[in-house]
Amino acid sequence: MASLGPVSAQFMRFEQPLPLQSGTVLPDYTLAYETYGTLNATRSNAVLVCHALNAGHHVAGIDDKGSAGWWDNLVGPGKPLDTDRFFVIGINNPGSCFGSTGPMHLNPATGRAWGADFPVVTVEDWVDAQARLVERLGITQLAAVLGGSLGGMQALAWTLRYPDRVRHCIAVATAPNLSAQNIAFNEVARRAIVTDPEFHGGHFYEHGVVPRRGLRVARMIGHITYLSDDAMEAKFGREMREAERHWSTQEIEFQIESYLRHQGDKFSDYFDANTYLLITRALDYFDPAREHGGDLARAFAVARGKRFLLVSFTTDWRFAPARSREIVKALVDNRIDVSYAEIDAPHGHDAFLLDDERYHRVMRAYFERVGQGCDV
Amino acid sequence: MASLGPVSAQFMRFEQPLPLQSGTVLPDYTLAYETYGTLNATRSNAVLVCHALNAGHHVAGIDDKGSAGWWDNLVGPGKPLDTDRFFVIGINNPGSCFGSTGPMHLNPATGRAWGADFPVVTVEDWVDAQARLVERLGITQLAAVLGGSLGGMQALAWTLRYPDRVRHCIAVATAPNLSAQNIAFNEVARRAIVTDPEFHGGHFYEHGVVPRRGLRVARMIGHITYLSDDAMEAKFGREMREAERHWSTQEIEFQIESYLRHQGDKFSDYFDANTYLLITRALDYFDPAREHGGDLARAFAVARGKRFLLVSFTTDWRFAPARSREIVKALVDNRIDVSYAEIDAPHGHDAFLLDDERYHRVMRAYFERVGQGCDV
Repeated sequence: MASLGPVSAQFMRFEQPLPLQSGTVLPDYTLAYETYGTLNATRSNAVLVCHALNAGHHVAGIDDKGSAGWWDNLVGPGKPLDTDRFFVIGINNPGSCFGSTGPMHLNPATGRAWGADFPVVTVEDWVDAQARLVERLGITQLAAVLGGSLGGMQALAWTLRYPDRVRHCIAVATAPNLSAQNIAFNEVARRAIVTDPEFHGGHFYEHGVVPRRGLRVARMIGHITYLSDDAMEAKFGREMREAERHWSTQEIEFQIESYLRHQGDKFSDYFDANTYLLITRALDYFDPAREHGGDLARAFAVARGKRFLLVSFTTDWRFAPARSREIVKALVDNRIDVSYAEIDAPHGHDAFLLDDERYHRVMRAYFERVGQGCDV
Repeated sequence: MASLGPVSAQFMRFEQPLPLQSGTVLPDYTLAYETYGTLNATRSNAVLVCHALNAGHHVAGIDDKGSAGWWDNLVGPGKPLDTDRFFVIGINNPGSCFGSTGPMHLNPATGRAWGADFPVVTVEDWVDAQARLVERLGITQLAAVLGGSLGGMQALAWTLRYPDRVRHCIAVATAPNLSAQNIAFNEVARRAIVTDPEFHGGHFYEHGVVPRRGLRVARMIGHITYLSDDAMEAKFGREMREAERHWSTQEIEFQIESYLRHQGDKFSDYFDANTYLLITRALDYFDPAREHGGDLARAFAVARGKRFLLVSFTTDWRFAPARSREIVKALVDNRIDVSYAEIDAPHGHDAFLLDDERYHRVMRAYFERVGQGCDV
């Protein structure tokens, strides 16, 4: 299938402060975004793609640096989310480190980088920021909002916050909130970062350093939770890097150690430590049932009339199928139209980013349906 | 049931160097140990208890500091491992930080603390050290060797290394080797420790500091893997410390965060960073099938005639029941007498230390059988 070819980020500035769930505001900010395909005359074919922790607006195509978008296998001409048919929007959320206003940018109130003082943002705040951008693009109703993992939470939040502005919600490998174990992993990663002496209370930019040690540990923990136990066993098992043991506690003996260290090193080269804190915290806080006494079905009452596709993966132990089923049940309890696919895939949480045939077939079929609702 | 009351550590010095699997030796060393109960006239009622990461020779009773032994619920007068009947020995392994020679002690060759230069020790090395001590106590054959988790690996290794010196092996919540995921968690913990600037290449003793940040992160990761997802959910769920959110990435919001930080803080007060590296590495290396081309059944051929009890816990995802079943299969393939109990317990890996009625009933019944083989 053809790829989109070169794509470029666009930037939209918002001078009107964004009110945040925490009670404060995000003043004057800029969002990076990309679009693929063509908005039709009735502006009814727009699909918004929401990103997770380590991604941004560059969803598909090849950017200026020669990098393919993070969901390029799914989004493009002739692909399951077909850019010949849909107008697809990728937005980088505020607080991230891939182009939109984030902790590495200047706090207008102090004239220094925001650092750890960047306001705490939530899934709902991101959805509000996205809604403003979508509105400025002249789109009053999205054909669909789509996301995986944390992106799936944003897709769900759209149907709760702006039910009139979205027709379909596609939420992949996601959960209605984090479990204690999910929060625990986030907390360990955050502690690794903030206790790194080079974190400097989040103002490391001024010191010309990066809390790399903390970021490396955070990423290594993340990678363990993204892969299934079985996938890790199949890929690495107990394979040694060399035939002979080194009898060392610090040298690399096993291939899995080499893999994790490499992932940690790479990540610490480009990811922002304050962004890591902000995004993991947004994950922790997400809990739409909370203001409904813990009743998820009541939370989704407002989404009646929307249509949903939920997808989970059997070996995903980060956001296990049971978590998606909780959402399906809450939707069914509201007699909301929901399709649900539990894909038997070995790759764990990472599966949502991979090119699994059965998964992509489900996505393609669903987007066929989304397309039927668009005036073309 | 009565407790053992006050117990005291004893120390045994070994001037003869201990040859290690790595090819080097541990020179002149001391082992801390405790014993409970009375060795019978034929010296046939001795049971050795092997410890895991965060434990030592203080298995049962109350020590000088008023602390109960780590397996006091299992070992004592009238308890499943009945000290009225058995002579029970707890030994602290070399390299540990609870009394036996370890990295915080002086390296005779340099006159400074061993630090990270303490020789890498393996499960087999520990068993060799234990065997010497048992021999000095005048015991030529143990009635049984018992351990959980890493202790279970030692119990298994006894039957492979000294099959004539042990009649029964009781291995609880253990595995024939670590999976890639197990190694991955160990590696992240080690990286957190060695990249802590206060680790000083393992010679932090000389700097009067402790790599607390690394130890805290290591322990937090450990705790996540000791508890089952369900147990953590039942105990903490999404419970907040206070009703109102603080909207902070660094303050404690959730009870699970508070719990983990507390566990990390406590641990960093007393556990040695070099010991953490050594013990996790011993776990990584353990793999009795390795020298038999990966064939575990062939590894256990030498243990024919021994009797085994294997116990696992349904929610243990660190050393899942499937790992115990691999051992059971290897034993059965050798027509070795093995009992296996898979206990339906909610607590995850930690269950092996807890007072679960069904679990303790199995242990009691098995020790009845062990006792029948002792001349009394």
